Amino acid sequence: MIILLKKEATKKDADVILEKINNEGLKPLYMPGTERIVLGAIGDERVLEKLHLDSYPIVESVTAILTPYKLVSRDMHVQDSVVSVGNSKIGGGNFAVISGPCAIESYDQLLKTAKGIKESGAKILRGGAFKPRTSPYSFQGLGLEGLKILKQVSMEVDIPTVTEVLDISDVNDVEEYADAFQIGARNMQNYRLLQAVGKAGKPVVLKRGLAATVEDLLLAAEYIASEGNVNIILCERGIRTFETATRNTLDLNAIPYLKQHCHLPVIVDPSHGTGIREFVKPMAAASVAAGADGLMIETHYDPTIALSDGKQSLDLDGFDDLMKYINKFVAVVNS
Amino acid sequence: MIILLKKEATKKDADVILEKINNEGLKPLYMPGTERIVLGAIGDERVLEKLHLDSYPIVESVTAILTPYKLVSRDMHVQDSVVSVGNSKIGGGNFAVISGPCAIESYDQLLKTAKGIKESGAKILRGGAFKPRTSPYSFQGLGLEGLKILKQVSMEVDIPTVTEVLDISDVNDVEEYADAFQIGARNMQNYRLLQAVGKAGKPVVLKRGLAATVEDLLLAAEYIASEGNVNIILCERGIRTFETATRNTLDLNAIPYLKQHCHLPVIVDPSHGTGIREFVKPMAAASVAAGADGLMIETHYDPTIALSDGKQSLDLDGFDDLMKYINKFVAVVNS
Amino acid sequence: MIILLKKEATKKDADVILEKINNEGLKPLYMPGTERIVLGAIGDERVLEKLHLDSYPIVESVTAILTPYKLVSRDMHVQDSVVSVGNSKIGGGNFAVISGPCAIESYDQLLKTAKGIKESGAKILRGGAFKPRTSPYSFQGLGLEGLKILKQVSMEVDIPTVTEVLDISDVNDVEEYADAFQIGARNMQNYRLLQAVGKAGKPVVLKRGLAATVEDLLLAAEYIASEGNVNIILCERGIRTFETATRNTLDLNAIPYLKQHCHLPVIVDPSHGTGIREFVKPMAAASVAAGADGLMIETHYDPTIALSDGKQSLDLDGFDDLMKYINKFVAVVNS
Amino acid sequence: MIILLKKEATKKDADVILEKINNEGLKPLYMPGTERIVLGAIGDERVLEKLHLDSYPIVESVTAILTPYKLVSRDMHVQDSVVSVGNSKIGGGNFAVISGPCAIESYDQLLKTAKGIKESGAKILRGGAFKPRTSPYSFQGLGLEGLKILKQVSMEVDIPTVTEVLDISDVNDVEEYADAFQIGARNMQNYRLLQAVGKAGKPVVLKRGLAATVEDLLLAAEYIASEGNVNIILCERGIRTFETATRNTLDLNAIPYLKQHCHLPVIVDPSHGTGIREFVKPMAAASVAAGADGLMIETHYDPTIALSDGKQSLDLDGFDDLMKYINKFVAVVNS
Repeated sequence: MIILLKKEATKKDADVILEKINNEGLKPLYMPGTERIVLGAIGDERVLEKLHLDSYPIVESVTAILTPYKLVSRDMHVQDSVVSVGNSKIGGGNFAVISGPCAIESYDQLLKTAKGIKESGAKILRGGAFKPRTSPYSFQGLGLEGLKILKQVSMEVDIPTVTEVLDISDVNDVEEYADAFQIGARNMQNYRLLQAVGKAGKPVVLKRGLAATVEDLLLAAEYIASEGNVNIILCERGIRTFETATRNTLDLNAIPYLKQHCHLPVIVDPSHGTGIREFVKPMAAASVAAGADGLMIETHYDPTIALSDGKQSLDLDGFDDLMKYINKFVAVVNS
Repeated sequence: MIILLKKEATKKDADVILEKINNEGLKPLYMPGTERIVLGAIGDERVLEKLHLDSYPIVESVTAILTPYKLVSRDMHVQDSVVSVGNSKIGGGNFAVISGPCAIESYDQLLKTAKGIKESGAKILRGGAFKPRTSPYSFQGLGLEGLKILKQVSMEVDIPTVTEVLDISDVNDVEEYADAFQIGARNMQNYRLLQAVGKAGKPVVLKRGLAATVEDLLLAAEYIASEGNVNIILCERGIRTFETATRNTLDLNAIPYLKQHCHLPVIVDPSHGTGIREFVKPMAAASVAAGADGLMIETHYDPTIALSDGKQSLDLDGFDDLMKYINKFVAVVNS
Repeated sequence: MIILLKKEATKKDADVILEKINNEGLKPLYMPGTERIVLGAIGDERVLEKLHLDSYPIVESVTAILTPYKLVSRDMHVQDSVVSVGNSKIGGGNFAVISGPCAIESYDQLLKTAKGIKESGAKILRGGAFKPRTSPYSFQGLGLEGLKILKQVSMEVDIPTVTEVLDISDVNDVEEYADAFQIGARNMQNYRLLQAVGKAGKPVVLKRGLAATVEDLLLAAEYIASEGNVNIILCERGIRTFETATRNTLDLNAIPYLKQHCHLPVIVDPSHGTGIREFVKPMAAASVAAGADGLMIETHYDPTIALSDGKQSLDLDGFDDLMKYINKFVAVVNS
Repeated sequence: MIILLKKEATKKDADVILEKINNEGLKPLYMPGTERIVLGAIGDERVLEKLHLDSYPIVESVTAILTPYKLVSRDMHVQDSVVSVGNSKIGGGNFAVISGPCAIESYDQLLKTAKGIKESGAKILRGGAFKPRTSPYSFQGLGLEGLKILKQVSMEVDIPTVTEVLDISDVNDVEEYADAFQIGARNMQNYRLLQAVGKAGKPVVLKRGLAATVEDLLLAAEYIASEGNVNIILCERGIRTFETATRNTLDLNAIPYLKQHCHLPVIVDPSHGTGIREFVKPMAAASVAAGADGLMIETHYDPTIALSDGKQSLDLDGFDDLMKYINKFVAVVNS
């Protein structure tokens, strides 16, 4: 930790802080410069955080040197982690596509879609029973009934499932009916919910928040991991920027960054990341080329009747075409 | 609603959509242009939303004309709303300052701080019992014990209180021990929680999310209002932008916008909005000048020992100085 | 053009505006709704712009329907344009990599680098003689001497060149010594400079500004095209967002968007787009997969002695490795 | 300067860098930690910049400690600077309002507007002769003829003037006909232009770029100052963020930041900062309360016929009302 003091700081001011660093068992460093005094503290920075050195009026800034996340860090676990969702694997060379409708609308809708995507090579079925919608007047999902449909279709088609959980009170139900939790972008910093799925026994697809840095995403994963559940799949799905031509700005730089700093599998959702049907295929290919371990693609057997996100959903032919295309890129990356 | 068709669209394509608009009881409009066909639909756009016209491949874009929020709209309620927190009023000419520590740390800490801020003119006490922290290794708040301290101090000092609620499971406790709910920035789109406080009987301070547009904020308020609770105070607290010199970018443009489009009181939190102690006073004054109905200011009797947000907290002298300063601006605005 | 009037607007207010629309030879439309009056104007919206309807107090908003750019629009020119830089082609199935150092530092430096990149398959040499630097104390480039080195190396190695032009006064020199102009991100809206290169006879690589939407980029290209020079190559190089883990946020969504709306070739600069050497290769591959017609890659025979941007520069081995890798992706895209 | 090495770095790697720091005459520091080696360098960091330490593969990151700007720094010049534009002063307790039309359209237009604003208390007249417009099809200004009108009106009404300069080739003309240069947001990083006005003898109003951090703005000012011209007025005019409800996001946090770090006067342009006529007055008041030394306000004697920016322009009555209102805030700030 590097502590820059204000211009007017004296040696005496520095000593007060150096002593506090020393008292926590860290090694203090005094670096008087020509213009400012700089202090250092060598050791576990989580200990130092308790001192709240940036609250001191004489301190100009405090800069951390080490990453604030530990369990999900690549430093802790050099090998790629592999996460199993039902009998499907993601990570460590296992590429997997998750697909299905934005919202579960009916047994027929989900069954038709699930059969189609499995045939084209999807490994995991998605579908929302609880839908977070910006407007209270939009369709909010079928709830528990939706979860039951998801389970039934999962068994009939023999494909594992993932579905979003919005609130702690639904964690048990989701765990009963699905093979993995999804934490949506709006809930990435709903820490109680992160802790709840961290205590549960099934894997978690953790979506990046609209305003979350990649470090924020890793800290959110650390919340889950610190409760004991390390079966986490990180999902880049676009961030909010000034650009309005697309629904979000898909930040594919996040893939090499996350792969370098963290051992967890990373997938990309180009459906939300673009918001435009025609852009899903090229951006899915780009995600694979950037090093993604998987994709999440919204598919509906008939997008024109979809109750939500129809504009960005592929139909089954479109999904089949996408799968054939991206498989060529997966082959190149693995070669 | 204005529907722009793709270049290749024919009159026949248009007719399909016009018929759907007509079937919903809205008035369809056909506007063939020199380069594109444009369609219109006149009437309640919430009805039209069910048609998901943007899912049609032939549709290029759909633009709403009317605001998607209704209950919180200025159109629905021309007069400024006044919200009461305990015996303190905000809005409609009632200016009120909410102050207190970021986190409740102890009975002594809260009591000292509460006495000080009340003496300087604060009308409502804030203090967090449940703290959402970016890192799982940071102090998470005292929980229920913190709520009890808040209640006790509230009675001793005779000042109403507001405290953050993080999860539905805490709504009852918070309602029992505090006079108002706070929904934090990270939970602004936690719709279940919005619905839960919407069903509760106490007012809600709703903070704008880091990536939320002002329209998103109004839709979040609409969630609460649509459950029956219209005692909502909107709070601007900074958004996330590329600027890193301050913790957030305080968007004071939001104040005249919100006052123009919505009848609810609007307050500003310059502590989070700047993240820097020295900037709180000028930005508090700026908020008042821009038309804010109140302020939320983090204060601690000794910021250097604060367990969170010490860097942006005022001490009691600093708060007193701020109050004296901003009261002059309140006088000008009200004159 | 769709004109939404304010709530209090009357039929008489509408008539004033309808008459103005009619006077310009466009077709006016009157659409009285249940809550608001909406007006329309069908025809060439550039004509309407002269009316500045949004300046009227009674007008709430004006929404354009058609794109404000024309010459660079895909509507005007359905086929992909092919741009020739010297004897190298980009666009319409011609994939080309531009490479070289950030700044021209010496004849030896440029010669070594140029030979290396050509051997690995680069088609065009880049190198800056005029460097726009955030700090006035950083190296500003060799100026005219740099241009002469560029020309000499170009002839010796037999590779065409592109170099940045910062000011109108340098347009002639750059045209004399290089095969293409580069307009940097900071100058994307330097309209005088755009007009100057629009009047020149050599192609232009136009980089997207840090805060420029894709529509802004297309309007900047329209400035060049409207002066008669349609040999424009668009370059995505990252935008500025809240994310600080990478130097910029590379917006690959821009590629399918630009290809859909515009006929010009689109290239990507993953060196500036990431700012981190290790991320250049995966993001170059991602760019190809997303549909880019080419790449711009910073290379230096020894990045540790580079006078600028060394952190993001590849050495010659790294560049050779990148070329071998991305050629596989080019093959997939073209198959 | 703090240099963090990669995990795999050895003492030997560190020694190479420490020697380089020593060779530049700076004091090197070696700080071996439990997880990483950290190096320090104490002294003038501009010297160190030449070493480009971040280009070394073994270096993870380099963090500057001291500000990269010097001449404009508050450290260099503790007192507030006062800048004179003609016979009007800004800064150091001198509050001044600059006003006038976006573009000079005719002698009559400018004369009417100039008389009106002067009567209401404006100290400086603005008006654009060269207009940077996003579309090549929009009105581009009257050019030299506009400058002559500006000079004539300036003399008749006896008010000093400021006008935007777009290109080096216009610097002489602008200096001849106006009392101050304006560098627009799009040209804030047009370094050649900054250097040219830095060599000129008249003051410069420097507007913050759409994607410029406050540090970028200070470095742009440093460019001007380093050529010898320290008569610089910084202007906050809104940045580009995800929020689209207003034309830009006015970042008033920048005011206390700039005042703390820099001795130059700071003004605010709430016309561009909001883009909406009704918001100009409250945001002008907020700017004053936040500590601005002046304002720039777009005014037109009849905004409905303005050739540009009519939507955000005040008429003369509106401007008079604004002046009366903000004078009360100026009085409070100065009391």
